[in-house]
Amino acid sequence: MAHIIDGKAFAAALRERIGAKVADLITRHGLKPGLAVVLVGEDPASQVYVRNKGEQTHAAGMHSVTHRLEASTTQEDLLALVHSLNADPAIHGILVQLPLPAHIDSNAVLAAIDPNKDVDGFHVVNAGRLAVGLPGMVPCTPLGCLMLLKDHLGSLTGKHAVVVGRSNIVGKPMAQLLLQADCTVTIAHSRTADLPALCRTADILVAAVGRPEMVKGDWVKPGAVVIDVGINRVPARDPEAAAAGKTRLVGDVAYDEAAAVAGAITPVPGGVGPMTIAVLLLNTLTAACRSRGLEAELAEFA
Amino acid sequence: MAHIIDGKAFAAALRERIGAKVADLITRHGLKPGLAVVLVGEDPASQVYVRNKGEQTHAAGMHSVTHRLEASTTQEDLLALVHSLNADPAIHGILVQLPLPAHIDSNAVLAAIDPNKDVDGFHVVNAGRLAVGLPGMVPCTPLGCLMLLKDHLGSLTGKHAVVVGRSNIVGKPMAQLLLQADCTVTIAHSRTADLPALCRTADILVAAVGRPEMVKGDWVKPGAVVIDVGINRVPARDPEAAAAGKTRLVGDVAYDEAAAVAGAITPVPGGVGPMTIAVLLLNTLTAACRSRGLEAELAEFA
Repeated sequence: MAHIIDGKAFAAALRERIGAKVADLITRHGLKPGLAVVLVGEDPASQVYVRNKGEQTHAAGMHSVTHRLEASTTQEDLLALVHSLNADPAIHGILVQLPLPAHIDSNAVLAAIDPNKDVDGFHVVNAGRLAVGLPGMVPCTPLGCLMLLKDHLGSLTGKHAVVVGRSNIVGKPMAQLLLQADCTVTIAHSRTADLPALCRTADILVAAVGRPEMVKGDWVKPGAVVIDVGINRVPARDPEAAAAGKTRLVGDVAYDEAAAVAGAITPVPGGVGPMTIAVLLLNTLTAACRSRGLEAELAEFA
Repeated sequence: MAHIIDGKAFAAALRERIGAKVADLITRHGLKPGLAVVLVGEDPASQVYVRNKGEQTHAAGMHSVTHRLEASTTQEDLLALVHSLNADPAIHGILVQLPLPAHIDSNAVLAAIDPNKDVDGFHVVNAGRLAVGLPGMVPCTPLGCLMLLKDHLGSLTGKHAVVVGRSNIVGKPMAQLLLQADCTVTIAHSRTADLPALCRTADILVAAVGRPEMVKGDWVKPGAVVIDVGINRVPARDPEAAAAGKTRLVGDVAYDEAAAVAGAITPVPGGVGPMTIAVLLLNTLTAACRSRGLEAELAEFA
């Protein structure tokens, strides 16, 4: 059976290290990293994410501000808030929680964030920096996946990584990061011919498609490392519980089948999921250090 | 034997179509696309390129300006020129010929070019636009390769494309373009394990490594389309001529061997090479049309 990559434990340890570094930066440099999270409207899932982000930022000893705006907020007012956060020296990271209400142009709002404070890494300038190999802000989820892979495998050089999914948020930046780590990288997607056969060539298989249990056990090469980015809510296994509306979370990988073949695998939940907020904190720390020319402080997190 | 993809003829036809569109834009919209090329110093190869660019821009009926600066030009003066070209409404495309003298920071100069006038597509904002799928300026050589592929194959959907080489100028943007065209895309490089076997899985094989005749015939899947981006100068075949310093151009692909196996192949010279300047003209046309909201004029070149 595969080694289970414990993202929850890794994320907790990472948050500890970030917290220690934050305390250190405050003492030695008077620098308290600050994250501003902006939530527009009442989307229940977003409420939970934003609360978690605020709590974990606080727990790491950072300055944490959450702006909760009414669903009717105008784009102009939201942009004005972003501009004021761009100018605020106590704020090093800005995260505008998606999705935004339909009357607001999300692209315009994301484009207004100072790229150096764009801790989600969604700004086009950060996509460009990642593409050409310049330091920038890297999207949290793929960066978290890379950290888990490096922790488990050490060097990734020469491994064949297959990334299934080509979103701007996960698949494409994941491919860039794996390429920087000297993997041979294949990006597959809905138009790929014979996806199972392609996946079977992967030393590292990253599933980021948002389709429950799509990747089957016989798509996995024996010994491969499987990273499951999917978080899908499906009916509970027990028919009675399902009929009562009970649900469970599954990934994009058929876990039991894949775990029987893989060398290592991330579970869902408890694999990639917990890394996202931990890396958000790391990105905030990174932005804060860079704002003061303290990149050397980040060496231990590389 | 493989079909020979005649890039020289395709580029000539493309320049014709661009010329016709330029004449049309001048008549109907009073819009004359303008390209400024900046050359610093006396590099002989750069002199040739810049002269060719100027001549072909002229031939297409565009406004063409070449700025030749001394090798001793300061970075400050070069940046001042770039800023003045950014502000010049008669100039829609700006190309700073590389390499620049060692005392000038090329990245700083490229970053100073207005991304909307960056007809080389090297600005980080354009790398980002390409990565996330927004309209931008795309590097000329990979865009030229894509045009040759679409012309030969029609739809590229579901084809497995292997790009050998991961430069910011060719390999990485080539991979992005092939992904946008719905290929399954693998990026290979010097750290790739068993490169020959990987290349043999390619329906489309793009060689962009700058190593003479590295890709052998038995790396090519029968029937594959081979795009050879390399232009390498090697000694002439005839030993006496070679001894006398005679040279010849070869690609990154061992042409005779590969042509015996491939379904189609670009020769060197006369394949990808002539496309680069033709696409530079197309990018200038694109920038000019966008500057006036005339994107619809570009439909026939898509």
